[in-house]
Amino acid sequence: MILKDQAPLVLNITNFVSMNTCANMLLAIGASPLMAHATEELTEIVSIANSVVLNIGTLDQNWIVSMQQAQQLAVLQDKPIILDPVGAGASQLRTNTAKQLLQQGVSVVRGNASEILALSSARYQTRGVDSLYASDKAIEAGLWLSQQHNCTVVISGERDYICLEQKVHTISGGSDILTRITGMGCSATALIGAFSATHDEPMQACIEAMTAMKLASEKAATVNASPGSFYTALLDEIYKLKQSEIDERINQLATSA
Amino acid sequence: MILKDQAPLVLNITNFVSMNTCANMLLAIGASPLMAHATEELTEIVSIANSVVLNIGTLDQNWIVSMQQAQQLAVLQDKPIILDPVGAGASQLRTNTAKQLLQQGVSVVRGNASEILALSSARYQTRGVDSLYASDKAIEAGLWLSQQHNCTVVISGERDYICLEQKVHTISGGSDILTRITGMGCSATALIGAFSATHDEPMQACIEAMTAMKLASEKAATVNASPGSFYTALLDEIYKLKQSEIDERINQLATSA
Amino acid sequence: MILKDQAPLVLNITNFVSMNTCANMLLAIGASPLMAHATEELTEIVSIANSVVLNIGTLDQNWIVSMQQAQQLAVLQDKPIILDPVGAGASQLRTNTAKQLLQQGVSVVRGNASEILALSSARYQTRGVDSLYASDKAIEAGLWLSQQHNCTVVISGERDYICLEQKVHTISGGSDILTRITGMGCSATALIGAFSATHDEPMQACIEAMTAMKLASEKAATVNASPGSFYTALLDEIYKLKQSEIDERINQLATSA
Repeated sequence: MILKDQAPLVLNITNFVSMNTCANMLLAIGASPLMAHATEELTEIVSIANSVVLNIGTLDQNWIVSMQQAQQLAVLQDKPIILDPVGAGASQLRTNTAKQLLQQGVSVVRGNASEILALSSARYQTRGVDSLYASDKAIEAGLWLSQQHNCTVVISGERDYICLEQKVHTISGGSDILTRITGMGCSATALIGAFSATHDEPMQACIEAMTAMKLASEKAATVNASPGSFYTALLDEIYKLKQSEIDERINQLATSA
Repeated sequence: MILKDQAPLVLNITNFVSMNTCANMLLAIGASPLMAHATEELTEIVSIANSVVLNIGTLDQNWIVSMQQAQQLAVLQDKPIILDPVGAGASQLRTNTAKQLLQQGVSVVRGNASEILALSSARYQTRGVDSLYASDKAIEAGLWLSQQHNCTVVISGERDYICLEQKVHTISGGSDILTRITGMGCSATALIGAFSATHDEPMQACIEAMTAMKLASEKAATVNASPGSFYTALLDEIYKLKQSEIDERINQLATSA
Repeated sequence: MILKDQAPLVLNITNFVSMNTCANMLLAIGASPLMAHATEELTEIVSIANSVVLNIGTLDQNWIVSMQQAQQLAVLQDKPIILDPVGAGASQLRTNTAKQLLQQGVSVVRGNASEILALSSARYQTRGVDSLYASDKAIEAGLWLSQQHNCTVVISGERDYICLEQKVHTISGGSDILTRITGMGCSATALIGAFSATHDEPMQACIEAMTAMKLASEKAATVNASPGSFYTALLDEIYKLKQSEIDERINQLATSA
């Protein structure tokens, strides 16, 4: 796996709940996680990072300042920036912060359907949305966001939709036990950060990262489908995952589509 | 389980050490954990929460402000407030903060005997306490606190004592390996938050939550009584627990009492 | 194990990523972890602590203030202070903060070769360093730091080197899966905190703590060498470790040296 060979350094400015989980998932896939947020050191830290993950899960003003600074530095240095708009829609602080980060330039934004819709509310408030959480509405929102902000939009859920301009790539599979463990969305975003650091095409990075989550979660669920054991097995399976397995699954889904 | 059907949203303003553990325990029991602390968003966040857990485990002034604000909002909206006075007695900051939160109105306070005694020190300083950690003194303190603050007091330990006004409900059982894993007290408090969101009677919510911990810990200890494996098994057993098992255990203890 | 009998209280002012892991490792070895950072309570908290661990993993100005205050109190009370200079060398903030903490007095500093070299850069910038990460250069740096700051220096890696004045104690063994789990260096530092609280000689405390990590990681790797399962097994093996096993391994290494 190119990722394991390169062991990219992924800077995570992320939330208190899933910091440990994201670090372990990144280590398992073969990347090097780095958690740092002090404004005094971000210039140096961003300069050595291969990608930057911004996650607003336990946001406050101090963390917003750190995220904005890291983003500005990463934009200038043309490094992949991955945004996880955790809880966008649940508060104005989250929605507005996520929208500002989006406008300042990201490579990828990954959220669930509700979060992606919240980020595109300007559009949907004017048009009216019948069923806010229907996947077709979310995909429409994802495509619109992708065009507006020139980024790849990943809508994760039972099926993942990866939206870029006019294209939608769909990934099925995976285990629904993922929803019973905290930090699994954050972990998917962190993995996108890892793959983005070793791929020129953000969409391909997203497809591989989300396929890795689907594959590893399926395997982990066959080991044990209760959440404690599942999480342990998921780290094991992420660690054991081969690039050839990811490629094979991507090809299978492409053929069956 | 009513809890699983309703999937209540439990807001946790809690400590850095056990945030991940509490989130996973809440997900395993069927609740939806939400961790947020920014004062700018607490009005919106409390309004969508079904209960609010305040835990002072890694306290500082910023977190005190967030807790007080969330509490005031929850009091006005008549939402269950659960206090975990971690380390009360170990510093004035913790003791005083916990007492202030108690005075501003909580549904339940859960601590160990030492913490509960620290919160009732006004009473015990005047009377003198022979053996500070004797369970009868702790129960006396719990009953006094319950009457003073019109709340349910849970004293957890080898046996749990749930005190409301003149009544004490005792819960035996459980595994002592719980004391070798961090965040197990915090997790019990979080579970009380979950059950409180779906029960009108705080005492019943406490009885069910603490019984769930006892039952799941016994089962987990039979899987593996070393702490790493035990924690994994505990999440599994919390996830698999049925309401009928909780009810049956409660009835058994009531009959044998 | 003296450690289990005494159950020393280890204050950790540490990073967000590994707080939970360090707490669980300390509980598993038989110590009592205490995480606190509020300046208002550090006087009381340090007074009850048996040792103080300072870890700069997710540093910012607030945490620097807390660490400096705890250190000053611990120095006055002659309590063991263990420093983990996470990421020293990656930013001036980290390098300078770690150097300042070193100068104000620590019993032990534990880092990897890169971090230990960064702390001794004053020396190596003037002499020039051919191969920054060669173990002989790191050992030279460790011995120099030990003499400069009158402390024990632990350089951890595939082999651990424990440096005190002119002496170097080498510990081999262990599992390289440790590098695929976050917080394992932090955990080693926390264990040094635990052993330092029950040993008069810091070097002996370091030897026992690092040997405990080596031994437990070897055992855990035989249970399962994938990172999720390995971490679970590591907590189990730390918990089951006997003092006699640690002593026996130390004697074996001494004989074979």
